[in-house]
Amino acid sequence: MSKQSIGVVGLAVMGRNLALNIESRGHAVSVFNRSREKTDELIAEYPDRKLVPAFTLEEFVASLEKPRRILLMVKAGAGTDATIDSLRPLLEPDDILIDGGNTHFTDTIRRNEALAKSGLHFIGTGVSGGEEGALKGPSIMPGGQREAYDLVAPILTEIAAKAPDGEPCVAYMGPNGAGHFVKMVHNGIEYGDMQLIAESYWVLKQVLGLSNEELGKTYVEWNKGELDSYLIEITTKIFDKKDEKTGEHLVDVILDRAAQKGTGKWTSQNALDLGVPLPLITESVFARVLSSLKTQRVAASKVLSGPAKKPFEGDRAAFVEAVRRALYLSKIVSYAQGFAQLRAASDEYKWDLDYGTIAKIFRAGCIIRARFLQKITDAYSKDKELANLLLDPYFKDIADNYQQALRDVVSAAVQAGVPVPAFASAIAYYDSYRSATLPANLVQAQRDFFGAHTFERIDQEGSFHADWS
Amino acid sequence: MSKQSIGVVGLAVMGRNLALNIESRGHAVSVFNRSREKTDELIAEYPDRKLVPAFTLEEFVASLEKPRRILLMVKAGAGTDATIDSLRPLLEPDDILIDGGNTHFTDTIRRNEALAKSGLHFIGTGVSGGEEGALKGPSIMPGGQREAYDLVAPILTEIAAKAPDGEPCVAYMGPNGAGHFVKMVHNGIEYGDMQLIAESYWVLKQVLGLSNEELGKTYVEWNKGELDSYLIEITTKIFDKKDEKTGEHLVDVILDRAAQKGTGKWTSQNALDLGVPLPLITESVFARVLSSLKTQRVAASKVLSGPAKKPFEGDRAAFVEAVRRALYLSKIVSYAQGFAQLRAASDEYKWDLDYGTIAKIFRAGCIIRARFLQKITDAYSKDKELANLLLDPYFKDIADNYQQALRDVVSAAVQAGVPVPAFASAIAYYDSYRSATLPANLVQAQRDFFGAHTFERIDQEGSFHADWS
Repeated sequence: MSKQSIGVVGLAVMGRNLALNIESRGHAVSVFNRSREKTDELIAEYPDRKLVPAFTLEEFVASLEKPRRILLMVKAGAGTDATIDSLRPLLEPDDILIDGGNTHFTDTIRRNEALAKSGLHFIGTGVSGGEEGALKGPSIMPGGQREAYDLVAPILTEIAAKAPDGEPCVAYMGPNGAGHFVKMVHNGIEYGDMQLIAESYWVLKQVLGLSNEELGKTYVEWNKGELDSYLIEITTKIFDKKDEKTGEHLVDVILDRAAQKGTGKWTSQNALDLGVPLPLITESVFARVLSSLKTQRVAASKVLSGPAKKPFEGDRAAFVEAVRRALYLSKIVSYAQGFAQLRAASDEYKWDLDYGTIAKIFRAGCIIRARFLQKITDAYSKDKELANLLLDPYFKDIADNYQQALRDVVSAAVQAGVPVPAFASAIAYYDSYRSATLPANLVQAQRDFFGAHTFERIDQEGSFHADWS
Repeated sequence: MSKQSIGVVGLAVMGRNLALNIESRGHAVSVFNRSREKTDELIAEYPDRKLVPAFTLEEFVASLEKPRRILLMVKAGAGTDATIDSLRPLLEPDDILIDGGNTHFTDTIRRNEALAKSGLHFIGTGVSGGEEGALKGPSIMPGGQREAYDLVAPILTEIAAKAPDGEPCVAYMGPNGAGHFVKMVHNGIEYGDMQLIAESYWVLKQVLGLSNEELGKTYVEWNKGELDSYLIEITTKIFDKKDEKTGEHLVDVILDRAAQKGTGKWTSQNALDLGVPLPLITESVFARVLSSLKTQRVAASKVLSGPAKKPFEGDRAAFVEAVRRALYLSKIVSYAQGFAQLRAASDEYKWDLDYGTIAKIFRAGCIIRARFLQKITDAYSKDKELANLLLDPYFKDIADNYQQALRDVVSAAVQAGVPVPAFASAIAYYDSYRSATLPANLVQAQRDFFGAHTFERIDQEGSFHADWS
């Protein structure tokens, strides 16, 4: 009996779609799910595809060519550990486990080390693109043993999304947890992008009073330029969509309570651990949390006052353009923060990440895919050691030209009582980062005053303590 | 030989000052330090005080009345575990260990549970007030077994700071990690207060061009009113202080690179875990991190542009008052966030925290002591279940009257290129919290579009998924 070159464990939507994607490239795929119903369903739905069902792990493992390549698409956390524990006694040295779940990178580091002791390879890979991406071509961010990656690279390359220039959106990220880390930061950036788009929507609606039709048209226009991206594209479609039940625009009947699955939170917590400023993404995470306090907000809206509503009296088209510029510059600031986090992580965990390649594999397949990612790749091609994206000539130029728009949009929103936490955080970061001096001298004076924590001086090396009394 | 009612392990500055504080209330105190030099120094420096040195833990433990009361003032983390491990075999059921270090509350929960298995009591207590507070009267936030607290309460009450109305600044916070948690949030709030004062300084200096003398006078004035607090008081003294070496104002020769010891970071990370919006404190933590990137900032200042400098043309006194109002309202927003975090933690960890009492014990001794804390106590006395401090009539009134000033200061700073991350975050939170609707409907639509994550509707219960294609 012929054996398969790869198997998939876990046939929920992501696992099932990845199995179908792999199969569509001409590979027979062994499939296994803990409860057999999902396996039966998949086979029944696709009777003509080369999917080979197994109903025990023994049977599944036996059906694979050596070294075995097993893609785990199970629930992250305890589910992954349980699956690994069940598989481990059935595996042999050089077999490769690939965890494609949304796993915290520290778990991946731990599992990679533990399995290496038995000679097993463990690849933790980010897979972005949602259900459709999994089926047709996701962006793939694998980390783990390089030699193991080389053995799965051909299949991953086949199933990955293709960038506009034809390059597959997959690359080796680095050892142990590097792949899942990159995916985590990708997701944090996604939180930032979504919050920024939401703020642009809210400012256009609350300050200018744009209708859903006008909003839809605005995003269609924006998607033709620098902001060209998947998230803007789906935003145009969202404003088009009518609710079947009420006939209203669907966006207006959706409750304004944003949920989250935790990867944005992880990104912020890690930035705090690494000591990297990541305020924009963190404001975006908190904005979701705040949105979820719907009951409190409704109650507070009856108690707390805002500024009097005033009709907008400026040039409407100019303000729409200012919001577009504010959105693009804020997005650049957010990516500058996210890529600075990648850099700090690369140093801390010794991953030797290639930032230009990371931006490259984000160009298609994943949720944050966007035309401007090419500019990030270009920036790192020019200067591999770039300390911050804002310093690259292209991004500096945008900052020079768009900062006034961002200042104007933040001022207008703040004066109008429209919350723009991410826009405001973007300009604060920009102005802090470009400040040779900041008021942290006062903070250090206070710390030395009350806690004798000492301070540095501008005119000589060393730590100093003053007698403040 | 008579035995002592309490002993202190760890004679670095905080432990030594607490021992002297306890002794000054009429108690003989056993003292022990891992290396005997510190013990010898202490005894040599204070030969007439009732400090009883011990040079082995056996001797130390034998010198104490039962149940033994042992205050640990050792380096948080592994140092605390090592000390506990050494003491444990020497102790008997009902003995009480009190950890007064800056310990993460989850470590305290773990140690409390582990020691309870041997019948030992473990109190984790926040101690705030720096060196001087430790010596003369700190604010004390103990958590652990209630019956153990009752046995140490008399001494803690004696050594604690006294509020203006004479009440001692100590109270039982709750079981296991409650005390260290409250201290952690205290420190997070301290980060927020310090960042807000730093931003007020920077706006007054950069926008109005106030001199250090003028700044000093301004903070003296402010300290007479609503902002009356320890941190404003020391700020007035900081602007007064001249550098002995250069004759310049000392604040101007201190390097603007703020350090941190991690408790602000913990507060933000925990808020992310609990799902409580804590953007202001988190922006303050990131502001310190950003300040520490001095070399990058100096380089960036030569590349990135800001707005053209314009002389201030408005009413200068009115702008100073606007900054004062912005500072006070932002501070209120920060405490609203911090106390919301206490509330969420109380529910999550089942601590039954008493928010009014917490504000009460912050009124003296600790770094964030301030006149306005009484207003927080008053607010919770009126309504123990207050969802958010901003909803209390006193704070709502301040918000009504001061929000325009905060909007104006944020706008002016943003237009002038002066970074105000915490002020800007304060108004964004205020406007978000009082918004019955927010643009999170778009975020949910996007999540459902790309990931089938479903959404809720405004007109019926349940989870819904749309066919967006």
